[in-house]
Amino acid sequence: MKVSELFTKTSKTAPADEVAKNAQLLIRAGFVHKEMAGVYTFLPLGLRVLENICTIIREEMDAVGGQELKLTTLQDPEIWKKTGRWDDEAVDVWFKTKLKNESELGLGPTHEEPLVRAVQPFVNSYKDLPFLAYQIQTKFRNETRAKSGVMRGREFLMKDMYSFARTQQEHDELYEKIKQAYFRIFERLGIGEQTFLTFASGGMFSQYSHEFQTITEAGEDTIYVDRAKKIAVNEEVYNDEVLAELGLDRNTLETVRAAEVGNIFTLKDKFSKPLDLVFTDEGGKEQAVLMGCYGVGPSRLVGVITELLADEKGLVWPEAIAPFTVYLAVLGDNSDNNHVRKVADELYSELTSNGVGVLYDDRDVRPGEKFADADLTGIPYRIVVSDKTVAASSYEVKKRTEAQPELMNKDQVLKMVQS
Amino acid sequence: MKVSELFTKTSKTAPADEVAKNAQLLIRAGFVHKEMAGVYTFLPLGLRVLENICTIIREEMDAVGGQELKLTTLQDPEIWKKTGRWDDEAVDVWFKTKLKNESELGLGPTHEEPLVRAVQPFVNSYKDLPFLAYQIQTKFRNETRAKSGVMRGREFLMKDMYSFARTQQEHDELYEKIKQAYFRIFERLGIGEQTFLTFASGGMFSQYSHEFQTITEAGEDTIYVDRAKKIAVNEEVYNDEVLAELGLDRNTLETVRAAEVGNIFTLKDKFSKPLDLVFTDEGGKEQAVLMGCYGVGPSRLVGVITELLADEKGLVWPEAIAPFTVYLAVLGDNSDNNHVRKVADELYSELTSNGVGVLYDDRDVRPGEKFADADLTGIPYRIVVSDKTVAASSYEVKKRTEAQPELMNKDQVLKMVQS
Repeated sequence: MKVSELFTKTSKTAPADEVAKNAQLLIRAGFVHKEMAGVYTFLPLGLRVLENICTIIREEMDAVGGQELKLTTLQDPEIWKKTGRWDDEAVDVWFKTKLKNESELGLGPTHEEPLVRAVQPFVNSYKDLPFLAYQIQTKFRNETRAKSGVMRGREFLMKDMYSFARTQQEHDELYEKIKQAYFRIFERLGIGEQTFLTFASGGMFSQYSHEFQTITEAGEDTIYVDRAKKIAVNEEVYNDEVLAELGLDRNTLETVRAAEVGNIFTLKDKFSKPLDLVFTDEGGKEQAVLMGCYGVGPSRLVGVITELLADEKGLVWPEAIAPFTVYLAVLGDNSDNNHVRKVADELYSELTSNGVGVLYDDRDVRPGEKFADADLTGIPYRIVVSDKTVAASSYEVKKRTEAQPELMNKDQVLKMVQS
Repeated sequence: MKVSELFTKTSKTAPADEVAKNAQLLIRAGFVHKEMAGVYTFLPLGLRVLENICTIIREEMDAVGGQELKLTTLQDPEIWKKTGRWDDEAVDVWFKTKLKNESELGLGPTHEEPLVRAVQPFVNSYKDLPFLAYQIQTKFRNETRAKSGVMRGREFLMKDMYSFARTQQEHDELYEKIKQAYFRIFERLGIGEQTFLTFASGGMFSQYSHEFQTITEAGEDTIYVDRAKKIAVNEEVYNDEVLAELGLDRNTLETVRAAEVGNIFTLKDKFSKPLDLVFTDEGGKEQAVLMGCYGVGPSRLVGVITELLADEKGLVWPEAIAPFTVYLAVLGDNSDNNHVRKVADELYSELTSNGVGVLYDDRDVRPGEKFADADLTGIPYRIVVSDKTVAASSYEVKKRTEAQPELMNKDQVLKMVQS
């Protein structure tokens, strides 16, 4: 894509009321637009990042046998009343609305209830289990405050998977398989190093739940990390008993701020029982289905990755999720017939025809402006074509994360950006 | 995918309160789940169809230079008040909700206002224009009645593109280019033959708008079609003056029921003016941007295509949007070691490794049940592997739209389903 055709532009300022670093940078780079606190439009560059994150998540969910569906935003009170979660006292983040006949509806803050009702007609016998169902869907949560940019939205994207098992053992196996898929997701997203499996409160139904926490000052949680063992403990279960059980030593733990990027839960029959999700086992006995739920927030991840990797010059995207792989800047006389421009045009064609995503800065602006925008947008490789590089029959290539450019020939360029 | 692993099942009945044929069939085949009137969950098979439709639409929008973004559901009253569309009297399908501080928000029934506000910071000079922006996003409309299944939802998916031009001529060129893209979309979706460019009321700003109407008894509109000229006139502008202008003869027009599957509009400065979307032209003069909007409903299309193509045995999907290309049914003894089962397993592997989507009916059920499900789910090719076919070193292939199967060897099968 050519920068001259992209309808967004970078900006030196963000809205005055925007306090979160992630939103400030994402807005300045033209990745998102703030509709109101906690509600962000994803502009073309931001949507590409979001979709790249979703693709990685989807691939890993499919790889463990997840079946994708898409539930709805509008929620029928009936099923939520059955689980006791309709009242604003029970769930304090409901957005509610009304049909014309005055009957109340909710906007899904989470989706256990409708998912259980949707799969219920298909579950009768032990032969119908186990299975995994998931969706990537917008959630609505009426947060009192929303000051963390895209990290905590009133409207945000969520991947939520649910497991349906017959026995505790079967549940445990699925749970472990999905836990491993989560490790792969964060690894592929480029934040594996900084993301820790974190023991947190399991609520009523199991000893622990597992969070995936990414270390960042912008996080809302405090966790205690054992870097060698690659696990952590959330503040809420940080006590001697738990540490002993997990074989952790208080003295080797590091106290850090972190952002929760994923959360996996054992639900047992919490939802299946009130919503009558039962099956007949091999002995002919009726049993409640054992459930688990597994969440990860793609739009939140855009914010966390920004907080974690951005530097003073702007955004920094891991290659796997960058909106484009290459920021190609042509310098100097920019008329169509100029020989420098021709070399840049040719490289643009060659890279794109090789499947490399290129944002081609073909604008008639100063080199400094192009360099600043290349940095601000955080695209992994900047390639400069100028009089100087053409004279040297080469291209100037700089990684976003490195200070010094190097000169390369075309083969080297192709090899580098396709690796 | 194996039918034994798919968590949905077919059913002989649909909810008693469901009157629309499209929803009855889609529910029976396990493609959608009804949450409430006009609100449907897309289950795995249905979501595949929906996504296939979105992919075709996205490709055609990208091909004309559309830049995808994603606006939000939650709507800020401020901008809607500026255009006079916040009041329930002005827009009678609003769903509204409230923040905790009691300030009102809306759920987007359409997105002109927020889109204009989101692009406004990027438009200053004539050099910033023209461009096309689009999204595929859920819309919420508080319809009094919702009895047409997925054809008219209270919550439904919409692709809405917006054009931003400097002059009427530039607008007209963009409008024409997108109109042609719409023809390609309906052609690729397999309903090109039955879909007609239809002249409808243009509202305040142009003589006509253009609808794309697909002929079906389930449609809500009456149109007058000239089959030879491949155009139609909507009831609302069906008069002598319009017919004369379009060169149509009342005697050659056919009166039919049709469903609107797309609608394209000239908006002129209706939204740009109140929302201050202006640019400085080459002469230094400030001008309002000229807009157009271009809608097509992917979830509605699932319903329309169902109504149009389904027969007494169930759904019928065009290959381009079918959830799978092949329904592979293995008959007889279904144990893993059975030689017939082995032949079917091999074909399943070979087809999937060639990129052919296969729903493999590996269940231990009667042949009649497999045939009925193959028909009900509407997958384009049914391939049967049985004692008989293995003895003949062949496969029994039947198109969903044909009555008679034929025997083929593997090369013929591969050629057929990959064409």
